[in-house]
Amino acid sequence: MTGFKDIFSGQDWRKRLYIVIFEADTPAGRRFDQILLIAILLSLLTVMLESVASIRASHGRLLFALDWLFTGLFTAEYVLRLMCVPRPARYARSLFGLIDLLSILPLYIGLVVPEGRFLTDIRVLRLLRVFRVLNLPRYLDEASELKSAMLASRRKISVFLLGVLLLVILLGTLMYVVEGEEHGFTSIPVSIYWAIVTLTTVGFGDITPKTPLGQMLASVVMILGYGIIAVPTGIVTAEIARSSPRPGNQSATRLCPHCFSEGHDLDARYCKHCSGELPPPLSGVAGPVEEIRS
Amino acid sequence: MTGFKDIFSGQDWRKRLYIVIFEADTPAGRRFDQILLIAILLSLLTVMLESVASIRASHGRLLFALDWLFTGLFTAEYVLRLMCVPRPARYARSLFGLIDLLSILPLYIGLVVPEGRFLTDIRVLRLLRVFRVLNLPRYLDEASELKSAMLASRRKISVFLLGVLLLVILLGTLMYVVEGEEHGFTSIPVSIYWAIVTLTTVGFGDITPKTPLGQMLASVVMILGYGIIAVPTGIVTAEIARSSPRPGNQSATRLCPHCFSEGHDLDARYCKHCSGELPPPLSGVAGPVEEIRS
Amino acid sequence: MTGFKDIFSGQDWRKRLYIVIFEADTPAGRRFDQILLIAILLSLLTVMLESVASIRASHGRLLFALDWLFTGLFTAEYVLRLMCVPRPARYARSLFGLIDLLSILPLYIGLVVPEGRFLTDIRVLRLLRVFRVLNLPRYLDEASELKSAMLASRRKISVFLLGVLLLVILLGTLMYVVEGEEHGFTSIPVSIYWAIVTLTTVGFGDITPKTPLGQMLASVVMILGYGIIAVPTGIVTAEIARSSPRPGNQSATRLCPHCFSEGHDLDARYCKHCSGELPPPLSGVAGPVEEIRS
Amino acid sequence: MTGFKDIFSGQDWRKRLYIVIFEADTPAGRRFDQILLIAILLSLLTVMLESVASIRASHGRLLFALDWLFTGLFTAEYVLRLMCVPRPARYARSLFGLIDLLSILPLYIGLVVPEGRFLTDIRVLRLLRVFRVLNLPRYLDEASELKSAMLASRRKISVFLLGVLLLVILLGTLMYVVEGEEHGFTSIPVSIYWAIVTLTTVGFGDITPKTPLGQMLASVVMILGYGIIAVPTGIVTAEIARSSPRPGNQSATRLCPHCFSEGHDLDARYCKHCSGELPPPLSGVAGPVEEIRS
Repeated sequence: MTGFKDIFSGQDWRKRLYIVIFEADTPAGRRFDQILLIAILLSLLTVMLESVASIRASHGRLLFALDWLFTGLFTAEYVLRLMCVPRPARYARSLFGLIDLLSILPLYIGLVVPEGRFLTDIRVLRLLRVFRVLNLPRYLDEASELKSAMLASRRKISVFLLGVLLLVILLGTLMYVVEGEEHGFTSIPVSIYWAIVTLTTVGFGDITPKTPLGQMLASVVMILGYGIIAVPTGIVTAEIARSSPRPGNQSATRLCPHCFSEGHDLDARYCKHCSGELPPPLSGVAGPVEEIRS
Repeated sequence: MTGFKDIFSGQDWRKRLYIVIFEADTPAGRRFDQILLIAILLSLLTVMLESVASIRASHGRLLFALDWLFTGLFTAEYVLRLMCVPRPARYARSLFGLIDLLSILPLYIGLVVPEGRFLTDIRVLRLLRVFRVLNLPRYLDEASELKSAMLASRRKISVFLLGVLLLVILLGTLMYVVEGEEHGFTSIPVSIYWAIVTLTTVGFGDITPKTPLGQMLASVVMILGYGIIAVPTGIVTAEIARSSPRPGNQSATRLCPHCFSEGHDLDARYCKHCSGELPPPLSGVAGPVEEIRS
Repeated sequence: MTGFKDIFSGQDWRKRLYIVIFEADTPAGRRFDQILLIAILLSLLTVMLESVASIRASHGRLLFALDWLFTGLFTAEYVLRLMCVPRPARYARSLFGLIDLLSILPLYIGLVVPEGRFLTDIRVLRLLRVFRVLNLPRYLDEASELKSAMLASRRKISVFLLGVLLLVILLGTLMYVVEGEEHGFTSIPVSIYWAIVTLTTVGFGDITPKTPLGQMLASVVMILGYGIIAVPTGIVTAEIARSSPRPGNQSATRLCPHCFSEGHDLDARYCKHCSGELPPPLSGVAGPVEEIRS
Repeated sequence: MTGFKDIFSGQDWRKRLYIVIFEADTPAGRRFDQILLIAILLSLLTVMLESVASIRASHGRLLFALDWLFTGLFTAEYVLRLMCVPRPARYARSLFGLIDLLSILPLYIGLVVPEGRFLTDIRVLRLLRVFRVLNLPRYLDEASELKSAMLASRRKISVFLLGVLLLVILLGTLMYVVEGEEHGFTSIPVSIYWAIVTLTTVGFGDITPKTPLGQMLASVVMILGYGIIAVPTGIVTAEIARSSPRPGNQSATRLCPHCFSEGHDLDARYCKHCSGELPPPLSGVAGPVEEIRS
């Protein structure tokens, strides 16, 4: 990041604050993240306990006080972020900036507009702030591998989901016709909801077929759902297996000393890019190696 | 398609109409498909909302009008298709021709025969017309890959399904004998339905075992169902993994003209065994290509 | 099978009968199997319909007559099998012999001992006779592949099932202590039944946790069950993938002309058993082949 | 274990007792383990039957006597273990030492403190003692393979579980806002419990969405849960497939001493590249071995 120094020209405290708040490489930055993580989780616990009627009745005042404490803390943090970030407007409009704002706003709005159960529950979005804290190096690899496996298979999965969608609409309508409104299948949307409940093998049991024909059709839906779960599983498994470090004989660390290209096979004697002779691989095997697998 | 011009000899408007309606390669054809897709989805929404009792009571007249609007539209489309297609009779008897007809017929029949909740719900078959529109090139690859994986494993899957069928009949009968009619297992077919609900891990809970022996047997069914889901998943996963393009960028067909060795990477310029220059790969890419994936 | 002719010495009709009844390679044998299959399925349908109270009330006499018809047919078949088989006693004591007997006996016993709902339902075991008929060559491969994959992974699966068993016993007892008898967890066995229902993601809903601690514990059970289903799936998938035609470079058809051993790699130049020179592989590739994959 | 003899210096009976009780290689040790296993299982059965109200009422005295019998047995075993083990204090503080103690203590405490349903149910921890007995050699391989596959994928699985946790908290809160307390979603924790029940496809049905918006959201949760189960399955499958012994009988470590090529089969006697004689494989098998699998 060239010009990093220039951005904070002269304002040394802003730069130091930026490093503590936004980065996690220094001890101070890591400690800040840990405290923030604990504050977020405690504040979430407060929101959850507040939603339990009996606890709200007995400890309402304490929870209310804690709520304002955390909101005050997060407000201070938000202001500090705005102060030390090079471009405050851009941060405020970014995804994390909006989440930060949304996680403190409800209580302030509640002061002006007294109703708003819906508003205060927005505070649970504070949870999303955990993602910022969790961007720790040790998890990045795994997360990105899972992500890339899902990205690589997103086409197949969307074709699969489209097929499932068409299936549940057709099956739901069929069940609506077969079972009818008197057996709980009160409308086509409700019947589609039932088809999803059944196809995904969730099976709440709030709506169940009563007629023999309906039960026969439901059996078909269930066996279909039981069988086609293999499809997304197969897709993702194949992707993960493919994205894993390849078991083949290619070595990522063999470097050509002539053109500095990488990715040469373990059994290669000459660089495939510049035809220069390669040094033997690290495992020390020389001569005509047929196949080496680790 | 030789003789394509002859079919429409002289009738230039029929040919142009055919391209717009039946093909998706021209801008006009694509726009036609998009409008059709929206019309189908809106018409489906109308059918669904009509099935909700409260909406039917409050907006019945509007939905009725919309229904006739879409039916009129699809009728016009059907007539146009019949007019521009080279062999109208063959189109009318084809699968899509029948679906097109079935998606407009119910309302006209409803004019003559006034009852027919069952008839009007046939309109949901309009959904199948989406498939015609979705035959877009970008999804074809994924769909065909999934399809071929399923076709390749259809024998194993049918053997598996046969086994499941035998299992649920035996287990259902056993539960009928063990639990009896007083605990909801009123007949062998109902008990088989219960066995399917349980084995597929759907578990509605409308029928549940009450006796200790029945609960023990149900536990066996559940663990069986939990375990054997691995079988279809394994079959399909193995098929998808096999049909996928191989992980690396290695090409089995690139041959070194100097030492006749194979297995050279797609981005190799020189033989890794004898350092001789390689001809460019078949896909015609020359020069140092970093990474090529089909 | 040497001495096959001697077994039926002189009794040509027994030999011909044996081929028709026990084998499926001749047209007559295949037709016999098809008729038997239809008879079994129709007889099963009779048993099932008989168990439905309303149908039994309206068509009881017809079903009773049909039942005796099929029992008569299967009795004739059983007698014929006993007559034409070389060692009747051994057949009668074999698994299929016992199933054949069990599928005709109940009605005859019902003549002597008039009660016996349990007895007549044994007739459903006729279903197992389908297995005999289904030993058709075209399914044998798939069935044996699935079977060998499951046999190969039976050790891992039994270790896994043992772990699941220990888990449900511990979790069931814990839930019994936490929820107690007043919330439906009336005893440890019932709580273990609940744990199995939950862990296998069946979720009947006949017993559900009511206390916060119980719901928390149930959440752990559910996530566990959701996660560990990956284990049997992984085991079976890996087995199926392994038992599939191997993608490696070994060719089952390369034969050493010196010692007649098989299983030589595609890149082998000399027999690994007798050091004799091998002819080039069928694909006609000569010279130092690094790696060939089909 | 050098100095093994010194530990038991002079006390020959302690050494022999140690071998019988703690080891499973001698016939006596194996018999001891078998008897212990049966005693544990019978004692567990006693605990379970005691929890069933009707059995407790009819056979309470017998079960009480059996309970004391097994407790006496396990107490004797515990004392013997303490006596023969080289460092008794260390054994008493080890995991298995604590489990051994916990499985006998409840009854003795029950003599002093008469209440304690919770205490007596601790006896079910005796089940964990089965693990000690099950450390039989023949299962070790499979268990360790499964364990290493799960250890290798524990990072990916924890990232996945973290994502699931965030998802159920967000979805649970959303459902609490959408459905509200009047439809069973009485608090955020209860709604999160519902989200877990639904996402894991368990679907008890004790809490179900009633509003159209809630059912729509529930459908999304269900399809998500149906789809993302592919992720842990894919992770574990890829790990198991990777950790499995390679399909063929090829050994990566066999080196030809003449041309230094590798990748020779375990049953090869001569180098497939230069026809030189190979040394026998490391496992010490000489001669023409047809197929060796570990």
